Amino acid sequence: MNLTWQTRADAGAPELSSEDLDRIHARWRAANYLSVGQIYLLDNPLLRRPLERDDVKPRLLGHWGTTPGLNFLYAHLNRIIAERSQPALYITGPGHGGPGLVANSYLDGTWSDVYPAVTRDEAGLQRLFKQFSFPGGIPSHVAPEVPGSIHEGGELGYALSHAYGAAFDNPDLLVFAVVGDGEAETGPLATSWHSNKFLNPVTDGVVLPVLHLNGFKIANPTVLARIPEEELVALMKGYGHHPHIFTAGFDDEEPEAFHRRFAELLDQVMDEIAEIRTVAAEQGADAAERPAWPMIVLRTPKGWTGPKEIDGNKTEGSWRSHQVPLASARDTDGHLQDLATWLESYEVGDLFDENGAPVAELDATTPPVGLRLGERPEANGGIIRKALRLPDFRDYAVEVPAPGASIDEATKVLGGWLRDVVKDNPTNFRIFGPDETASNRLQSVYDVTDKQWVAEYESPDVDQHLARVGQVVEVLSEHQCQGWLEGYLLTGRHGLMSSYEAFIHIVDSMVNQHAKWLKVTNHLEWRRPIASLNYLLSSHVWRQDHNGFSHQDPGFIDHVVNKKADVVRVYLPPDANTLLSTFDHCLRSRQYVNVVVAGKQPNPNWLTMDEAVKHCTRGLGIWDWAGTEEEGTEPDVVLACAGDIPTIEVLAAAEILRRRIPELRVRVVNIVDLMRLQDEDEHPHGLSHRDFDTIFTDDKPIIFAYHGYPWLIHRLTYRRTGHSNLHVRGYKEEGTTTTPFDMVMLNDLDRFHLVIDVIDRTPGLGARYAGLRQEMVDKRLDARAYARQHGDDIPEVRDWVWPDAGDAVDQSQVQAAVSTGGDNE
Amino acid sequence: MNLTWQTRADAGAPELSSEDLDRIHARWRAANYLSVGQIYLLDNPLLRRPLERDDVKPRLLGHWGTTPGLNFLYAHLNRIIAERSQPALYITGPGHGGPGLVANSYLDGTWSDVYPAVTRDEAGLQRLFKQFSFPGGIPSHVAPEVPGSIHEGGELGYALSHAYGAAFDNPDLLVFAVVGDGEAETGPLATSWHSNKFLNPVTDGVVLPVLHLNGFKIANPTVLARIPEEELVALMKGYGHHPHIFTAGFDDEEPEAFHRRFAELLDQVMDEIAEIRTVAAEQGADAAERPAWPMIVLRTPKGWTGPKEIDGNKTEGSWRSHQVPLASARDTDGHLQDLATWLESYEVGDLFDENGAPVAELDATTPPVGLRLGERPEANGGIIRKALRLPDFRDYAVEVPAPGASIDEATKVLGGWLRDVVKDNPTNFRIFGPDETASNRLQSVYDVTDKQWVAEYESPDVDQHLARVGQVVEVLSEHQCQGWLEGYLLTGRHGLMSSYEAFIHIVDSMVNQHAKWLKVTNHLEWRRPIASLNYLLSSHVWRQDHNGFSHQDPGFIDHVVNKKADVVRVYLPPDANTLLSTFDHCLRSRQYVNVVVAGKQPNPNWLTMDEAVKHCTRGLGIWDWAGTEEEGTEPDVVLACAGDIPTIEVLAAAEILRRRIPELRVRVVNIVDLMRLQDEDEHPHGLSHRDFDTIFTDDKPIIFAYHGYPWLIHRLTYRRTGHSNLHVRGYKEEGTTTTPFDMVMLNDLDRFHLVIDVIDRTPGLGARYAGLRQEMVDKRLDARAYARQHGDDIPEVRDWVWPDAGDAVDQSQVQAAVSTGGDNE
Repeated sequence: MNLTWQTRADAGAPELSSEDLDRIHARWRAANYLSVGQIYLLDNPLLRRPLERDDVKPRLLGHWGTTPGLNFLYAHLNRIIAERSQPALYITGPGHGGPGLVANSYLDGTWSDVYPAVTRDEAGLQRLFKQFSFPGGIPSHVAPEVPGSIHEGGELGYALSHAYGAAFDNPDLLVFAVVGDGEAETGPLATSWHSNKFLNPVTDGVVLPVLHLNGFKIANPTVLARIPEEELVALMKGYGHHPHIFTAGFDDEEPEAFHRRFAELLDQVMDEIAEIRTVAAEQGADAAERPAWPMIVLRTPKGWTGPKEIDGNKTEGSWRSHQVPLASARDTDGHLQDLATWLESYEVGDLFDENGAPVAELDATTPPVGLRLGERPEANGGIIRKALRLPDFRDYAVEVPAPGASIDEATKVLGGWLRDVVKDNPTNFRIFGPDETASNRLQSVYDVTDKQWVAEYESPDVDQHLARVGQVVEVLSEHQCQGWLEGYLLTGRHGLMSSYEAFIHIVDSMVNQHAKWLKVTNHLEWRRPIASLNYLLSSHVWRQDHNGFSHQDPGFIDHVVNKKADVVRVYLPPDANTLLSTFDHCLRSRQYVNVVVAGKQPNPNWLTMDEAVKHCTRGLGIWDWAGTEEEGTEPDVVLACAGDIPTIEVLAAAEILRRRIPELRVRVVNIVDLMRLQDEDEHPHGLSHRDFDTIFTDDKPIIFAYHGYPWLIHRLTYRRTGHSNLHVRGYKEEGTTTTPFDMVMLNDLDRFHLVIDVIDRTPGLGARYAGLRQEMVDKRLDARAYARQHGDDIPEVRDWVWPDAGDAVDQSQVQAAVSTGGDNE
Repeated sequence: MNLTWQTRADAGAPELSSEDLDRIHARWRAANYLSVGQIYLLDNPLLRRPLERDDVKPRLLGHWGTTPGLNFLYAHLNRIIAERSQPALYITGPGHGGPGLVANSYLDGTWSDVYPAVTRDEAGLQRLFKQFSFPGGIPSHVAPEVPGSIHEGGELGYALSHAYGAAFDNPDLLVFAVVGDGEAETGPLATSWHSNKFLNPVTDGVVLPVLHLNGFKIANPTVLARIPEEELVALMKGYGHHPHIFTAGFDDEEPEAFHRRFAELLDQVMDEIAEIRTVAAEQGADAAERPAWPMIVLRTPKGWTGPKEIDGNKTEGSWRSHQVPLASARDTDGHLQDLATWLESYEVGDLFDENGAPVAELDATTPPVGLRLGERPEANGGIIRKALRLPDFRDYAVEVPAPGASIDEATKVLGGWLRDVVKDNPTNFRIFGPDETASNRLQSVYDVTDKQWVAEYESPDVDQHLARVGQVVEVLSEHQCQGWLEGYLLTGRHGLMSSYEAFIHIVDSMVNQHAKWLKVTNHLEWRRPIASLNYLLSSHVWRQDHNGFSHQDPGFIDHVVNKKADVVRVYLPPDANTLLSTFDHCLRSRQYVNVVVAGKQPNPNWLTMDEAVKHCTRGLGIWDWAGTEEEGTEPDVVLACAGDIPTIEVLAAAEILRRRIPELRVRVVNIVDLMRLQDEDEHPHGLSHRDFDTIFTDDKPIIFAYHGYPWLIHRLTYRRTGHSNLHVRGYKEEGTTTTPFDMVMLNDLDRFHLVIDVIDRTPGLGARYAGLRQEMVDKRLDARAYARQHGDDIPEVRDWVWPDAGDAVDQSQVQAAVSTGGDNE
């Protein structure tokens, strides 16, 4: 019987008995005991002999303070799950509470399911304790190693974003999200309360936030614990929630009493949710109004049930409980005795049988197999991930009669394909973005879906493409978008984030944490691969016409390539067909962070779809048609490019060289997959040295026009034979609001400068082509002067197109390609 | 007469007349006209002939939507400033509103003060219009080029943090902070409302937030404009504010009427502030309770006063007003005519005299000289910046009888000096941090100051070092800390941010924007240098004992070095005395971003203060005492190190080599100033090639142990002669909760591996020292096995100390140096 979203009365649940509450209390005591044991004990796990110094770990590492509160919630949530057959996830915002989640997974039996060596007996307990924060063991946080977790919480702020990401398109799921009051001070968390304006109460699941006010951080009180309760209530109402305040642990109230109070509160809250769902179902998904979802404020002492005082200082209920309260337990008799007393306070003798297995009373608190929090498939998304239904991207190809003979906005072309990806995967694929999906030219997706918006509506002429159900979710917070997408992927679905290139740095630290998660899960066999985290970065550094310097930063690529090579991929498709091919590859991939940078402006197309597929498969290649090599001989110079704008400038430079230095043998190389530049030892996509030398030569000058910071190319290629011949042009932090060509000139990436570089770097050209060199210098000056007078680029640049294109090209379109306005923000 | 913080009645201000309101309206019309003119007009600035296509710019770049609201507020704020002689700053959260702030600065006369070529006549107006978003002109945002601005707002989210940073220790200042409703969705902004819990109502200034709900972002409605008003009010009350809601522009209300309503509201709000200040002054700074500061919600149409409809689509009051509503004004007669009508609607003939100067009625709206928003010294902090009073850091030196013969926690030693910096600069220096000041061992500062905390208090045994006035400000939001510090520095003061190394990535994008601001101001003569932004990053990647992988990331350095070389500096002092010397240098510097990474664990001291000063002055150097070179000959191998942990490992490796390969001539080089590695052409601190080769040799193997990601060293040195001999060890994203030595082993940075590297890379050693090599391999295995068994490092490593130290060292301290727990979080 599926009791999901029924009130307790409707479900016919019996009254809570004293025995029920005793069991909850036993479960809490057991989890607390196992938590303390993990932090302190190397041996003697059941205290079957007096505690000795050698039983204590030599290095005491971990965090106690947040743990008992997490254990309290876990025990009560178990009852709800069992009673209502409620599929649930437990998101541990206070990731420091690793010992608690490990303890509960052990008590559930799910720890031993995935780590059979940790048996449910005394020997297993000893292993459980020893492994925690121990060399060769497990980390101290709620890390990927913990079954049931999709959220480590080492870096704070993303608990609610992850929770809502998990809830999207999971209508039967209850996501129980614990937010620490330290975390609550972070920016990302502060805005993530507003996620409720994006959650459909019929087609999505339910998030139940619990703000755990234990009052302290490392060495400070927390803000939300130190404002008047009426402000706290107003804040939560302002966020659109119905808050319930619950306080325990500050007086001598009996456990049965506070357990009863909390159990009843949880029933009340679950009933409230059930009523909301019923009303919403009646309204229908497309018309459902945003409800005021319940949330709980849980006020407890920090380090609840731990030592009241240590060395005369208040410990329970203070920041002194944050980490390891009895730091000298191995070194002083006093602390050792305090530890023994503390451990004994949980009455461990009643909790484990003679073999060391949890007693039946404890097992009775665990939800039935299938519903245990440690085994929910949503917390191991790879096992339920379904491959996307992907339309053949080749069908969306643009016509390219000759290189440069047609013009398209690459991301708009991609949008056409994404429209059908969206359509074919209605509950399995979402696009997240900070209000830039249309600005980045993906507007075709609105032919088949809308932006999910569960706040108020005004009138249709301004509320375009908004609906209560939709596969695009937009809010002006990169943190939220990233957190939602991570939560969506981690629970087994697919998606992408579309953003401006410069501002994706806002989530630098989040992508760090996700990449670390992927790296660790690559080594956990029981964790199955999840869909890759895909970024489409447009409105990039070279075309920030409306915004200028503040919107110019290509350094996210640099940031990402610092992560483990087996989890990061970076692509710079130069045109529409290569972008299609690249993105198809990304959406099929698993366990990666894929960064795709592509322009949204009208841009010449260079490759037919067949050529594009081959080019993307190789990741880089020589563009014969663009160079002037003779077969069987080496070129005199290599012009390399990565990125759409650098490709235009390199092709224009090659064209100048073809006309003006006809004897020069120029090779043009284009790079789509940046990781190909690296050594094969450093990155799985890396080229062998032989292949690299074949393409780039080992002794000829390589003039490399790169989309981002030039030194990244040096860092990727420093081991290559010809590295000392490499001269890279790229963004060197020069920019403002100006014309597109002035932007490339400001950074010496323009065609004229590339020709100068060729003359300067190729032996023998300098003396013979001093005149051409000077002409290029003058061209630059002319272009700059023209821009300052006319506010536009010189016609020669505006009209430039790949020469083979001939008359097939509409010159006004070509002009548009290089002269129209940039981003829309 | 100083009317600051008086009520209007007390100040004896007269009633508002119709003429007052007419003048405000004229000012608003003028600012709006000048804003539209800047976006569209190349010529014909006063419409003295019919508008023609060629009068319109060829590339229309900029943002209209937010501008009229900003102009409305500016006009009203001017009256308040003039009437109350109120020093004020205007923080423009919606940085897109560049045209508005430029227009108002022009009307104030302050634009012409700093840019005399832009005269107050028709020719000046033409220049003003043309320069906007034009090659060779000014950017489209409220950039550093705009007098009166400390906030560009290109990347959104920091308006309130900057405002509060400006208000700290500026008791007479009113900081008027406009928050856009797009920006309000970001995480950093969402938490920054809580800044009011850190502001002292006596010793700090006042922040008056205005949440400008114009309802739309680029292509979406905004969340806060689409929740019920009761939720919005609750949210602001929850944030601790007293909200005032004001709506205008949605009906046919006469301008005089809505101007009167808003003027009266502003008077009411200023009176409220005055009353708060009076009460607080009576309570006294040390006892003042946190008041509910007023804030204003301003609800207007987006693009207010712009075209109601364009091409049949609603424009005023919709997202269609965001950027340039009449995009085809140069290309179509229809749009050209619409533009002419729009411009004429402001009745420009009444606003400028025959020469094109603003009429007297407009000048009358400008505050007196000295109070004009475009000239406030707080917005050009360099002109009021006072040098810090810095105690002589040499007096805080630790004793170093011989290298390694004493042990200290470097950041704790720094804390001693910072204590006296704090004491000697009570209103000019602040430390900001995310609850990590004590964790990073700077607790000595609490001898002389406290953490400023204006929320509730509990009891003294848990509320240690908290007070209503204090020079340390801590909240668990790196965004807030960074924003506060930026605001504090930009308004002419000094400070530092203390944080964990891994999580400083949270502010990657903020430091981008600040570095860009510094770069631009370096080229603006009228902007004077401000104090550098100093980071002390501790709890670094190698000693995250309690937290493990999620807390390990040294990549902030990589991020920062992508910024312009003339604004970034990176230091890795290896011990306490070098840290003191480094930080003294940082606090004296101007216009930089200084990143200092230093450990907080007990660590051997290597250099006496005299040696440290010399070493830091050079930035790097050969440590003769650590190597085995013979005078007059070149070494066989160079061991280089940067960072405290790599220094220990290199010195230990050198010691093994001294004993085991006595004939090998080893040179040890330590690097404090990372930028010394770069080319002198690339960075002002860069070594010449000759000096580099002298130190590192041009042909010997260089084994480089580096604190962070190893490839950064390659990127910095790829142009060096000996680059191909360079082998770098560093953090390669391997880590977990384990022992300190296991951490270095996981990343092959340990002494044993360095010895292996020396044997493998130095010609001739491989064959002869195969036995030693195997011994090193075995040592690593032994160390790993020991850790897994004992949970600690092998005694050989724990006890290791620089051998010259002899008996002077307390071995238990040495052991502590490498075996105690790490961070406190």
